[in-house]
Amino acid sequence: MNQIIKQIAKSESVKADYILEGISAGKIVVPNNKKHKISRPCGIGEGLRTKVNANIGTSEDRYDLKTELTKLEVAIKAGADAVMDLSTGGDLVKVRRKILKESCVPVGTVPIYEAAVGITRRKKTFKDLTEADFFEPLRRQAEEGVDFFTIHCGVTQEVIGRLKNQKRVLDIVSRGGAILTEWMLSNKKENPYYSRFGEVLKIAKKHNITLSLGDGLRPGAISDGTDRAQVQELIILGELAKEAREAGVQVMIEGPGHLPLDQIETNVRLEKALCNNAPFYVLGPLVTDIAPGYDHITSAIGGAMAGSFGADFLCYVTPSEHLGLPSVEDVEMGVIASRIAAHAADIVKRTPGARDWDRKMSRARKQRDWTKQFSLAIDPKRPKAIRKKTSPSADDVQ
Amino acid sequence: MNQIIKQIAKSESVKADYILEGISAGKIVVPNNKKHKISRPCGIGEGLRTKVNANIGTSEDRYDLKTELTKLEVAIKAGADAVMDLSTGGDLVKVRRKILKESCVPVGTVPIYEAAVGITRRKKTFKDLTEADFFEPLRRQAEEGVDFFTIHCGVTQEVIGRLKNQKRVLDIVSRGGAILTEWMLSNKKENPYYSRFGEVLKIAKKHNITLSLGDGLRPGAISDGTDRAQVQELIILGELAKEAREAGVQVMIEGPGHLPLDQIETNVRLEKALCNNAPFYVLGPLVTDIAPGYDHITSAIGGAMAGSFGADFLCYVTPSEHLGLPSVEDVEMGVIASRIAAHAADIVKRTPGARDWDRKMSRARKQRDWTKQFSLAIDPKRPKAIRKKTSPSADDVQ
Repeated sequence: MNQIIKQIAKSESVKADYILEGISAGKIVVPNNKKHKISRPCGIGEGLRTKVNANIGTSEDRYDLKTELTKLEVAIKAGADAVMDLSTGGDLVKVRRKILKESCVPVGTVPIYEAAVGITRRKKTFKDLTEADFFEPLRRQAEEGVDFFTIHCGVTQEVIGRLKNQKRVLDIVSRGGAILTEWMLSNKKENPYYSRFGEVLKIAKKHNITLSLGDGLRPGAISDGTDRAQVQELIILGELAKEAREAGVQVMIEGPGHLPLDQIETNVRLEKALCNNAPFYVLGPLVTDIAPGYDHITSAIGGAMAGSFGADFLCYVTPSEHLGLPSVEDVEMGVIASRIAAHAADIVKRTPGARDWDRKMSRARKQRDWTKQFSLAIDPKRPKAIRKKTSPSADDVQ
Repeated sequence: MNQIIKQIAKSESVKADYILEGISAGKIVVPNNKKHKISRPCGIGEGLRTKVNANIGTSEDRYDLKTELTKLEVAIKAGADAVMDLSTGGDLVKVRRKILKESCVPVGTVPIYEAAVGITRRKKTFKDLTEADFFEPLRRQAEEGVDFFTIHCGVTQEVIGRLKNQKRVLDIVSRGGAILTEWMLSNKKENPYYSRFGEVLKIAKKHNITLSLGDGLRPGAISDGTDRAQVQELIILGELAKEAREAGVQVMIEGPGHLPLDQIETNVRLEKALCNNAPFYVLGPLVTDIAPGYDHITSAIGGAMAGSFGADFLCYVTPSEHLGLPSVEDVEMGVIASRIAAHAADIVKRTPGARDWDRKMSRARKQRDWTKQFSLAIDPKRPKAIRKKTSPSADDVQ
């Protein structure tokens, strides 16, 4: 661990002690399963660069391991700081093990997906899942080396009650949240990840897995942003985060989702307040519902703002969001759009080196040094290709 | 004029009187030269939808009228509310007249470009321009039917003095600003658009041209955002806007440029305060310098934020920004990215119908009504193509 902290400290231009203190205060997490060797570890939290996650993985009708490994490679090359394997199709264990083996960055999963896939393959429905079924994938994946788990432990009966009272346009858009709700309503039982949170902590602690407390009630429509159900869940996540910290388990909190842009600051400040400054991991937020095909842009807008107010970790959104599995090109575009958002936030956060990067680019622009501009670009390929195609006159002043 | 006001009022779902009162208070402009017949007029300002402008035009080494007309068509089809002809190559008059004839939306220009091209073609330099040369294109273009002019009247000796004291990373990135500064320093004279602003007003008044007071000192680098030179110019633009209003000339103010995202709110509020709530026309703002090839995204982030704080008119930025003339595809991408930003802002501004659009889309999503989702999409082509390619399983819940 100590070697990893030193490595992160160096890459962030901060002191190792700063990171260690951040971890013990619960403001920073370093996802890294004891069993998983990674050459590009990352710290997520206050005072560090805003990080980017790329979701990859198979679906029921798309099982192509080779393509998913290409996505992994492309995501990492484009600068993703972490990946999540959200596979639901084919041999889940094989895919995950391969991704864990190939990935030089931390790998996260949503273990409930594996439980849900398992029960469906046994020709049963979600409601037939036993409580043990919910925990089995956690144990297996922990042994395999997964670095962080999304656990939808905040979807409680109380929260579902508030959701019913709320009347949303789009009820539950989180897959994990939807599975749990169906199970809880059918069986009239509490969420096992909540009622047996201690077991989750035990597994996490044993393998040094970071918990990412999932927002099963995240708004999936602008109309549903920052409603009572969402905030109720966040309060519970805050309580569970406290429990995790007290048990010595690293924890971060997942956030929305779709939000009008004037609610983004509130959401970030609320998370920091209710969850004692735990790192905030946002999906987007997407600032409008009406741009399918361009949700890497709607989420770059929201992600940049969220980051500037203190969100620490951006889950990328690709042009395929709401439409289907992303292609390899979509993965690259998603990572780059999110990295732009993350860097725009880092300029505001004044993380070490962020403003220097822009200053160097602008100086290269002043000197009309194209080679330097390309080498400083967040993605050199694209501007090179455009420049080559357009080849304008020497006078590039706008 | 009255017919146009009624048409705009209808399309904005506001009362015609609201627009008329906004115009007389200087909070709304309706760019429309008396001679220019347009079927899609637009109002720009408080309480109306955030509008989008697309820049097109030839350059010295790219004179292809047909391509520029295709860009015009594509921009309008993608939803641009106005276009600016920034041509500097080939037969400027021919290009402009053709664009004016073909465009169903207001057309703007930067008349100083024509003066600059003229003097260069006469094998002279900018400093050889006479004061009459600065005004000649205004008169000609006014007669031709141009609806709005960018006039860099705020680049005064006082402002240039402050700029020298400032020490920027990138001095002046506005082409108009750079031409004027060179002329003023060489000839030791005041900016003719400033010293003879009354003549500008007279021309504008006669043809009902809206003036867009250009920000010749706009920051072109994150490091240069909101500096003393920029704000000094804005103060002067505020004074000139007052003069324009008193002369019965419609006026809006141009804004940055490159800005860290925590300076965007300040810039919008400053413009509204110093310029008596004149409509604010922003170029971007771009929230980082380091993403050439993706500046439609960096500016969508800034534009959405600026719009949400009250900016009224977004000048699009294409993926070719800082690299070369945009291609036809770049034009389309630029308009769509800006429209996404404008709409994200309109959700916050609560302009009539903005939130309904999102609600309809989310309802269609709930019903898994793909036809409706495509028809409601800001660009139906892209999501249709992605959906077709990925054809995922029926279960699209994330």
